[in-house]
Formats: sequence, structure tokens, C-alpha cells
Amino acid sequence: MKRIVERDLQVDETPVLVSSDNMQGVAVQGADGRSLGHVDHVMIDKRAGRLAYVVLAYGGVLGIGERLYPLPFEALAYDRAIDGYRAVVTRDDVEGAPHSLADEGRWSDPDWRRKIDLHFALPPLRADA
Amino acid sequence: MKRIVERDLQVDETPVLVSSDNMQGVAVQGADGRSLGHVDHVMIDKRAGRLAYVVLAYGGVLGIGERLYPLPFEALAYDRAIDGYRAVVTRDDVEGAPHSLADEGRWSDPDWRRKIDLHFALPPLRADA
Repeated sequence: MKRIVERDLQVDETPVLVSSDNMQGVAVQGADGRSLGHVDHVMIDKRAGRLAYVVLAYGGVLGIGERLYPLPFEALAYDRAIDGYRAVVTRDDVEGAPHSLADEGRWSDPDWRRKIDLHFALPPLRADA
Repeated sequence: MKRIVERDLQVDETPVLVSSDNMQGVAVQGADGRSLGHVDHVMIDKRAGRLAYVVLAYGGVLGIGERLYPLPFEALAYDRAIDGYRAVVTRDDVEGAPHSLADEGRWSDPDWRRKIDLHFALPPLRADA
């Protein structure tokens, strides 16, 4: 009984509130309306309590050749109509971005994170920097 | 090879950035220094991109009788010294709070969420409400 109730609580959600366990699979669309794949996981700034990056699983066929592309959260807006995120960037922007296979990116490498931030440094982000 | 790199990216982290897959197990201490258990999962406001609640797994012995207690993120502060969260509340506050077994709480029930927010409505939170 306990386990059933707990599991219910973990999968339960609202249009806005979602469990960290359920972020995987959320759809992401590019600014041009074409799919950018789906969320694999998110990177959380655990001090500030905010989403720093949404990591996309994108590309490949039937999961083969799929890569992970981190997108700064500021480059996304939640769209209730698609129950997913719309990016302010397009496939071309993402395809040229740092990803899990290129230069074996690591969060613990500050240069890698800087590369991502620079790649997606859209005007509003630059103003914050 | 691909899978190895991707897995590396998923588990890689920094003192501040952590994957949503790795929030589970983060320690939480009460204001009096006593353990409040650990993070089971977090509830994300996917529109605002912020952590709304940290859901504690607390109580019980060897996992039996453990309950899930949602804590508003505002009631926590990340403490690098313990690589976990310190709550502004104590065990007594948490033990009297809404949890997964009491009245079968559901996020989709706005009254339940209101109960949690009211229970932890500390002065700074009340000022924001």
C-alpha cells in the first residue's frame, strides 16, 4: 500500500509541476517548428534551485547516433499547447553546438560550459552576462 | 563508445550543477542539525524552470515506513560543507507536515498543495504570498 501511494505521488503532476523523474521525454521544438528531439535530463543549479541546462537527446535513427546537446534554459520557453519546450534556436544552431560526442564534453570542464554558453549567446543572454 | 560518453555526461557534475538523475539521495539536515533524511525527487516548475519542492524520503527503519514529505524549496539552503541541504525547519515541523501517506496527497489536488505551503509558511514565505 505504502509503495503504491508513494509511486502515485512520484508520477502525479500538474500542467506546471513535474517530477524530476518525469522530465525525460518532454518534447522540444525549434524556432522553425521542427523537432529538436526530446529532453534526456536537466542540469540543476542545486544552490539557486533553478534549471541551468536542458539536455536534449537529438539526432540519429532509432536511437543510434543520438547525441546529447545541452541547451541553456534561457533558450527555451514552455509551451502548454505542445506540453513541451519551444527553443528560440533552430536545428542549425543546435547541430553546430557542443554535444556529448564532440571533444568529450564534461561539466567539470569550465571551458566546455563556456563554449555552450557562447554558442547560444543570444542577445538577451549576452545582456545578462 | 557513444553510450559511454553519454553516460559520462549524465553523471558528470560540478559543486553546483547536478543532473536531475542525481538529485536522489542528496542529504537534508534540519535547522537543529538532525537529519531529515534524503531527497527522493524534486518537483520542477517546468515553465519557470525552478525547483518548487524538494520531496524528502524520511522516517522508517531500513526503508520500511519511510514517507515522502514535500518541502518548499524556499525552506532549504544548499550547504556545500555537507554537500546537501539545510532546512530552516526541524524534525517536528516536518513530522507534522502533509506527506505521501496522510490523506493520500496528490499534486493535482490544489488543496493539498495549499496545505503544504501553509504548513511551511514561514515569515519570509508569507511575505511573498
